[in-house]
Amino acid sequence: MPNDPLVVFTPSGKRGRFPVGTPVLTAARQLGVDLDSVCGGRGICSKCQITPGYGEFSKHGVTVRDNALSEWNKVEERYDQKRGLKPGRRLGCQAQVMGDVVIDVPPESQVHKQVVRKAASARVIEMDPATKLYFVEVDEPDMHEPTGDLERLARALKREWGIGDIRADLTLLSRLQPVLRKGKFQVTVALHRGHANDAAQVLEIWPGLHEDGLYGLAIDLGSTTVAAHLTDLVTGEVKASSGIMNPQIRFGEDLMSRVSYSMMNPGGDKEMTTTVRDAINALAGEIAREAEVDPALIVETVFVCNPVMHHLLLGIDPVELGQAPFALATSGSLGLAARDLDLAAINPRAQVYILPCIAGHVGADCAAVALSEEPGKSEDLALIVDVGTNAEILLGDKTRVLACSSPTGPAFEGAQISSGQRAAPGAIEAIRIDPETKEPRFRVIGSDKWSDEDGFADEVGAGGITGICGSGIIEAVAELRIAGLMDESGLLGSAEATGTPRMQAEGRTHTYLIHDGTDEGGPRITVTQGDIRAIQLAKSALYAGARLLMDERGVDKVDRVVLAGAFGAHISPKHAMVLGMIPDVPLDKVTSAGNAAGTGARIALCNVAARREIERVVGEITKVETAIEPKFQEHFVAANAIPHKTAPFPELRKVVTLPNPSFNTHGEGGAEGGRRRRRRG
Amino acid sequence: MPNDPLVVFTPSGKRGRFPVGTPVLTAARQLGVDLDSVCGGRGICSKCQITPGYGEFSKHGVTVRDNALSEWNKVEERYDQKRGLKPGRRLGCQAQVMGDVVIDVPPESQVHKQVVRKAASARVIEMDPATKLYFVEVDEPDMHEPTGDLERLARALKREWGIGDIRADLTLLSRLQPVLRKGKFQVTVALHRGHANDAAQVLEIWPGLHEDGLYGLAIDLGSTTVAAHLTDLVTGEVKASSGIMNPQIRFGEDLMSRVSYSMMNPGGDKEMTTTVRDAINALAGEIAREAEVDPALIVETVFVCNPVMHHLLLGIDPVELGQAPFALATSGSLGLAARDLDLAAINPRAQVYILPCIAGHVGADCAAVALSEEPGKSEDLALIVDVGTNAEILLGDKTRVLACSSPTGPAFEGAQISSGQRAAPGAIEAIRIDPETKEPRFRVIGSDKWSDEDGFADEVGAGGITGICGSGIIEAVAELRIAGLMDESGLLGSAEATGTPRMQAEGRTHTYLIHDGTDEGGPRITVTQGDIRAIQLAKSALYAGARLLMDERGVDKVDRVVLAGAFGAHISPKHAMVLGMIPDVPLDKVTSAGNAAGTGARIALCNVAARREIERVVGEITKVETAIEPKFQEHFVAANAIPHKTAPFPELRKVVTLPNPSFNTHGEGGAEGGRRRRRRG
Repeated sequence: MPNDPLVVFTPSGKRGRFPVGTPVLTAARQLGVDLDSVCGGRGICSKCQITPGYGEFSKHGVTVRDNALSEWNKVEERYDQKRGLKPGRRLGCQAQVMGDVVIDVPPESQVHKQVVRKAASARVIEMDPATKLYFVEVDEPDMHEPTGDLERLARALKREWGIGDIRADLTLLSRLQPVLRKGKFQVTVALHRGHANDAAQVLEIWPGLHEDGLYGLAIDLGSTTVAAHLTDLVTGEVKASSGIMNPQIRFGEDLMSRVSYSMMNPGGDKEMTTTVRDAINALAGEIAREAEVDPALIVETVFVCNPVMHHLLLGIDPVELGQAPFALATSGSLGLAARDLDLAAINPRAQVYILPCIAGHVGADCAAVALSEEPGKSEDLALIVDVGTNAEILLGDKTRVLACSSPTGPAFEGAQISSGQRAAPGAIEAIRIDPETKEPRFRVIGSDKWSDEDGFADEVGAGGITGICGSGIIEAVAELRIAGLMDESGLLGSAEATGTPRMQAEGRTHTYLIHDGTDEGGPRITVTQGDIRAIQLAKSALYAGARLLMDERGVDKVDRVVLAGAFGAHISPKHAMVLGMIPDVPLDKVTSAGNAAGTGARIALCNVAARREIERVVGEITKVETAIEPKFQEHFVAANAIPHKTAPFPELRKVVTLPNPSFNTHGEGGAEGGRRRRRRG
Repeated sequence: MPNDPLVVFTPSGKRGRFPVGTPVLTAARQLGVDLDSVCGGRGICSKCQITPGYGEFSKHGVTVRDNALSEWNKVEERYDQKRGLKPGRRLGCQAQVMGDVVIDVPPESQVHKQVVRKAASARVIEMDPATKLYFVEVDEPDMHEPTGDLERLARALKREWGIGDIRADLTLLSRLQPVLRKGKFQVTVALHRGHANDAAQVLEIWPGLHEDGLYGLAIDLGSTTVAAHLTDLVTGEVKASSGIMNPQIRFGEDLMSRVSYSMMNPGGDKEMTTTVRDAINALAGEIAREAEVDPALIVETVFVCNPVMHHLLLGIDPVELGQAPFALATSGSLGLAARDLDLAAINPRAQVYILPCIAGHVGADCAAVALSEEPGKSEDLALIVDVGTNAEILLGDKTRVLACSSPTGPAFEGAQISSGQRAAPGAIEAIRIDPETKEPRFRVIGSDKWSDEDGFADEVGAGGITGICGSGIIEAVAELRIAGLMDESGLLGSAEATGTPRMQAEGRTHTYLIHDGTDEGGPRITVTQGDIRAIQLAKSALYAGARLLMDERGVDKVDRVVLAGAFGAHISPKHAMVLGMIPDVPLDKVTSAGNAAGTGARIALCNVAARREIERVVGEITKVETAIEPKFQEHFVAANAIPHKTAPFPELRKVVTLPNPSFNTHGEGGAEGGRRRRRRG
């Protein structure tokens, strides 16, 4: 009615006129204002807190008098005494509109809270998880109109929340009656809806109003490491992050050796499945303890992983992934029950979502990177590389996205490196070699100081330098090249040729000594010719994959490069480019996306619509299979060299061969190929 | 085209013109003729056999020449050599239309085969089970267009059978790849669709064409016995039926004592759940062995049971069913996985359907009786009683159906009877007492002869008479009344008063001796005063339930009575009426429906639409709760007497009391009530 009070909500700006006495929550709902409520307006959940403004609001054309809202009522007084309301706040379900008013909905009272990602590109995730909490009052049973408790719960959810069909498994059904009676037929339920058209599944039920929150796990299941983020499903906040080594490593360091293990050992796949599921349970238990969260409150889990880990997690023999045509048992996304995966550490009815795989060698982890980095929305041509034991590579822009996977092996993670270790305190993570003196200085994880700075020894301590991690070895190899200690083919020079005693003979090759801790009982940390070869293989594979996508796309340069992966966060773009890991772009066009696969998992955990989006996007991605593409081999061989402006040692040029025949079907020719690549780029 | 050959199918009469060369199967499909095919027209499943007719068909206005169909082709020849085609038969997918033709589809080639029920009312069940077989050719994997094997299976099912979404659980996914490769990408799948809109679930997959059939179990889970019917899901044929005692009996003979057990013993419900699930597994294994069917081919199970057994089967504590308002945890139908119920004896992916419950005391077994007997389609007013440990009672016609349950206790099943036993060889199942001599003659299960016929002793043998079963005790009590050995109140007379030495004093009451086998080492079989009281309580409860429904319906007589239950098949309507178990109707209006609950379960197993029908019907049934209805108590007390035209013993009239105060809150007055009832009826 024209004479009814005008209500203006900020920040949305939505406005409307409502009869005197209308609760603010009712007005908000009628206008579609994003104001939360779990208890459905009963004054007990406090989610609908609002802040009325008083005085003149010329922007909105409203003058708000002191009596624009009804007086505090008993419900608000009780709530304030019990829990405390911030000054100026009211409960939206209790405060009634008495006159024209401007009402601010603070961020924490918005249903679709927005969580700003910490990564460079300040992207927001709208909180709209598959599982949410609902408080309901259920009709008590009536003998004369007999219906089951579940059916009356469904009726209440429909009446109070407009929710259609619900389902409950037997473990929930067996809890339903005692919980309803304990809560005097007032209960909070956690409802899961994986798809808009699915019946909502009752995952958990608590007597009365449940106020201890709801959590989910985003798990990045890698070949080498398993990382989990325990996420608050209401706020989107990451409560804890934790990682462990993938214990499947004992069956084989890389994916293909695990596939081989399965082929050679009957039941070997089952053994690996049990091993990884046990590890995930241990990790889930640990992270819940760390965050002091009841594991039973973890009701969702999202997994991202490569295809072999995908199959091993699911209990599917990965043998088909080890041979052409690399057929996946299933490529689509999966919605499962946690118990299907024996995930006993979390809520027994927890739901699992696994992102779709892109192809036999391009997994759900790559899909997660695509979800996080959105190459398909990029204006310029972006190359996204997620470096792990396998590298997932995406190339695309608004017009088209291509994807492939490249078998880099675990060298970039510090494995198969003589002094290598995973990124942990004591590991050398950065290194510089003086081009004049050929002397190194370095930084180790756990200290901010460089090794030539005062106090470094105090901070690191005796024997505190334990090895070299992925980013450290990449920098070391690049620095050896920059310092002129290594030629374009990757061959280390002798002490005589380079003029530094740090170059030490080892059999027919040479080794560069970074640090000798033997006097203090610590290790001798060196870069061997074998380490160089391992890094060369890894970087050639990565580069060859990127080139293959560029060929497919018909380009010979990209506009920007995004380095993803836990490791991508620490890598120095300059060194990566010196090494020839990635195509040349201006240094300021190389950014780090952090653990993009993990972020993608988190997005799918926090927003159910993102699951539909990535399912659609994956269908549109052009898949490129590296394993059988002759051009991949060509690019691989061509990428072996490490060219650099600094003059190499011409006298060493002739002896170059590639050490690993399994990667190099074309035999030698690395340096030659390297020159070819440079001419192109 | 008007000049194309005319094809007429019988028995449907469907007709149409098709171009020369059209396969008969194609013509049938286009006309919607019910012609089966599992292999999709590849000439390997032989389900589409047809019989062409030749000569003149004046009824159809067609003259069929000898060359109306194409010549036998190689596929048919090979099939005939390998398996044999009946004379005159052709394969519908191979034979092509060449001229006008009349084609008969034999019953075994119809998709929706009809199974005639053996019961009196010759009702047909159309075969349309929730799980069916489909043969498909799946595209082989292609590296350049990577999709999972499951996704390619889905594509093939869509292309060849028009099936939408499919789902597969992890246990199936782990079998998918080897089976597809073993079958060279030709496989048969068993697809389950519980609801029309659900994704079809892949329950099983076999390489090539699977020809060993598909089976389901219809299980009637009673308080005292568990009966199973192993049913062929293609033909509807019952391959075997088997029953065992419900081992929960050790926790309590009747339902309420099991509820008490659960209340008194923490974890007692879990113990009973485990016990009954173990028994079902044992029964399933046994019935499969008996029928020589691979248990892995059992992919469907339908359960009917009373509410307490329903909850105990599901693992739900039945405590709420033991007290007003008798709230069910869930009343709706349930679709579950067999593993949810720990049914390990059958296919691990088998699906379970449980019919809806009607009310807290009126279970899925009563719903099954309603599905089988269809009171809601009856022109006249039918009273259907399913007599077990509890009696399920339905009253209704086209206009309205009412239901209740009555706690008869196990006396009708021979339990709580001094010489009682369950119906098994050696049990007296029928008895007559000569009104003049007061001497009994009887028949025992296992022999067709009466005890006074020649050769009876030879057939039964010494000690072969072991006890008296449910139908025997009912007849005995009625005969005692007819023979003037018992008065209207149920009191047995003395030897002096009745003039027969078979009446023997036992404490302050008397006992009638039916058979004394002690000389041959057998038992002494008697009817005690306690037995009479147990039967009086049971029959009063049954009658009171029926009367309560009649009151609700506003009638004092019914048009017909249907006796259901395994026991209903053996009861003598005349004796039931003498006893006052059921309201008076003409004897020819009393029929037996056999195990109607089991039949209802079989219908739900064979026809998925019947599930939707009973779900709808249950919603429309008026539920009447006996336990708290004061009128039930009134009817119960009033029904205690056993009136009969034969003169009772007037001298015994005064001492009548009812023995069990827990059932008789009104104290004495049984005989009086009995007279009141007779006046009404």
